[in-house]
Amino acid sequence: MKTIKMKKNSFFFLVLLAMTSFISCNTQEKKLPEEAVKTDPLLSWNETATKKAIIDFVTAVTTEGSAQFIPEEERIATFDNDGTLWCEQPLYFEVAYSLSAMKDVFAAKPELLKKPELKALADKDMKTFMASGEKGIAEVFALSHTVVGVDDFNKSVQAWLQTKHEKFGKPYGDLTYKPMVELLKYLRDNHFKTYIVSGGSSMFMRNFTEKAYGIPPEQVIGTMLKAEFKPDTYQVVFTPELFHNDDHGGKPIGIAQFIGRKPVLAFGNSDGDLEMLQYTATNTRPNLCLLLHHTDAEREYAYDRESHIGQLNKALDEAIAKGWIVTDMAKDWKIVF
Amino acid sequence: MKTIKMKKNSFFFLVLLAMTSFISCNTQEKKLPEEAVKTDPLLSWNETATKKAIIDFVTAVTTEGSAQFIPEEERIATFDNDGTLWCEQPLYFEVAYSLSAMKDVFAAKPELLKKPELKALADKDMKTFMASGEKGIAEVFALSHTVVGVDDFNKSVQAWLQTKHEKFGKPYGDLTYKPMVELLKYLRDNHFKTYIVSGGSSMFMRNFTEKAYGIPPEQVIGTMLKAEFKPDTYQVVFTPELFHNDDHGGKPIGIAQFIGRKPVLAFGNSDGDLEMLQYTATNTRPNLCLLLHHTDAEREYAYDRESHIGQLNKALDEAIAKGWIVTDMAKDWKIVF
Repeated sequence: MKTIKMKKNSFFFLVLLAMTSFISCNTQEKKLPEEAVKTDPLLSWNETATKKAIIDFVTAVTTEGSAQFIPEEERIATFDNDGTLWCEQPLYFEVAYSLSAMKDVFAAKPELLKKPELKALADKDMKTFMASGEKGIAEVFALSHTVVGVDDFNKSVQAWLQTKHEKFGKPYGDLTYKPMVELLKYLRDNHFKTYIVSGGSSMFMRNFTEKAYGIPPEQVIGTMLKAEFKPDTYQVVFTPELFHNDDHGGKPIGIAQFIGRKPVLAFGNSDGDLEMLQYTATNTRPNLCLLLHHTDAEREYAYDRESHIGQLNKALDEAIAKGWIVTDMAKDWKIVF
Repeated sequence: MKTIKMKKNSFFFLVLLAMTSFISCNTQEKKLPEEAVKTDPLLSWNETATKKAIIDFVTAVTTEGSAQFIPEEERIATFDNDGTLWCEQPLYFEVAYSLSAMKDVFAAKPELLKKPELKALADKDMKTFMASGEKGIAEVFALSHTVVGVDDFNKSVQAWLQTKHEKFGKPYGDLTYKPMVELLKYLRDNHFKTYIVSGGSSMFMRNFTEKAYGIPPEQVIGTMLKAEFKPDTYQVVFTPELFHNDDHGGKPIGIAQFIGRKPVLAFGNSDGDLEMLQYTATNTRPNLCLLLHHTDAEREYAYDRESHIGQLNKALDEAIAKGWIVTDMAKDWKIVF
């Protein structure tokens, strides 16, 4: 089995942290007046340079006769998911799901308990489990996604999305960023085709992207496990082997393979998104590259260069050097969730 | 290098045939009165049971309140390309392109002439080249697609599409089936999302699907070569290694990976499409499976069970047994091209 590469080794300690205790704090969100939504498509954004840059770009490329005009069919916009469209702390939600799903995996395949690292996990001996390193995490990720068929996996994910996040006291599935949902809709209203291009697995994300973001399954590109066609049942089943790793260089590769057109707008939040932004910036059409900077410890989280998850270091330097739009969560967003 | 599997070994003899002489015969096509197009969306189809079955299905699944109603977002329709949307005889057009492009490959990489099978090809010694079997063909296919960058490859394909087909005296790029183009449009007018799911490479097909069929690049799933992201130029380049073989079981796999929804309509013409039809038939929504049977030696070609290209044998038996719609080109189509 190939392993699914995690962003940082020290990530495992965070999982341990997540499995023990979180800081609980409910944040107060302002309500928006309904009337204003009709006139301002980005009502959850503050009136800063970031909002202006987005609106100026969309206006220029959609105005016929403008030198910057982009034909509708080329208006491809790609978004990272974890940390860009929804929260990713204190650990990737898909990893949190995978850990929680292992109970069902052990019930279905008790023989797995012969493996010491999995036995340790079943016994909640996280220290021993973590000692197995990336291999153990990748094993959990792949097993939890393939131990049951696709239909049962989907049911399991959908049920899990109702689990409450310790910090926010809201279901994980509701921790999508309101300003980003508005931006996606604003782009589609201007005839952009919005895609998710994310390191998470497409089979996990497809359970909520349509409802949460208005993005249908066929516009979700993620990490993919190998699949097989079963000639007896005529079904496609996934196997615990990596087929496409949709992170770093895998993002532009996924775009080239599955979309076949270079984006004119890309939005990420971590070093794993840098290559997608670099690729988008080479579009001969006008283009806009954006990075979300998590600066809001009170309403969400504050992290960047040294973070164990969603590390934003090289990409932040390059964004500043190249004049990409760095979205400052604390300053640019009126509302988070 | 992995090899790209061809549908039949004896296929190579056809290539030889194609490289020497074709039967030339221009067929006469009737013109359609413009008025009639407005009322009949499938004007190039004869008034047979096939046309009725298609219209009955589309009407039933798009009529709100009907027991068969399918919500718009689930109206996914997948079409094979070679032999279903355009002609595939006397050899797959993409193979014809690949052979023709080898001149440029040799100019760019003269060291390839040290390989005996490629030297033979350069010397037009087809007998020796053919003796290299599938390996030689796969080598030509991969080299012709990757020797230059994507932009130059696209230019080369677009120029080649103007080459005239020996039998029809028309450019290869124009040999799309008029009844199928009408069907695609009819489905889209009824809010189906139309996809190509074909054994040909997506990088080749994306050069004409939008213009020829109204199908944008991002709705083209084909065989894919491995790709790499170049950190110096920020570009994606393709390599001569197979990444996804989009034939037989690879078709439902491609649908599950890249669309993430089961089709409600699928149309193919050969045994390579059988698994896609089997998969579609398991949709719990009403669904329609169709096969094109090439029965028209005069206007196009007649072939099925023993054909070297587009063999229709097992799939024909299964279609008859399961009541899938077998489209008889000679009887069901008023017009071919």
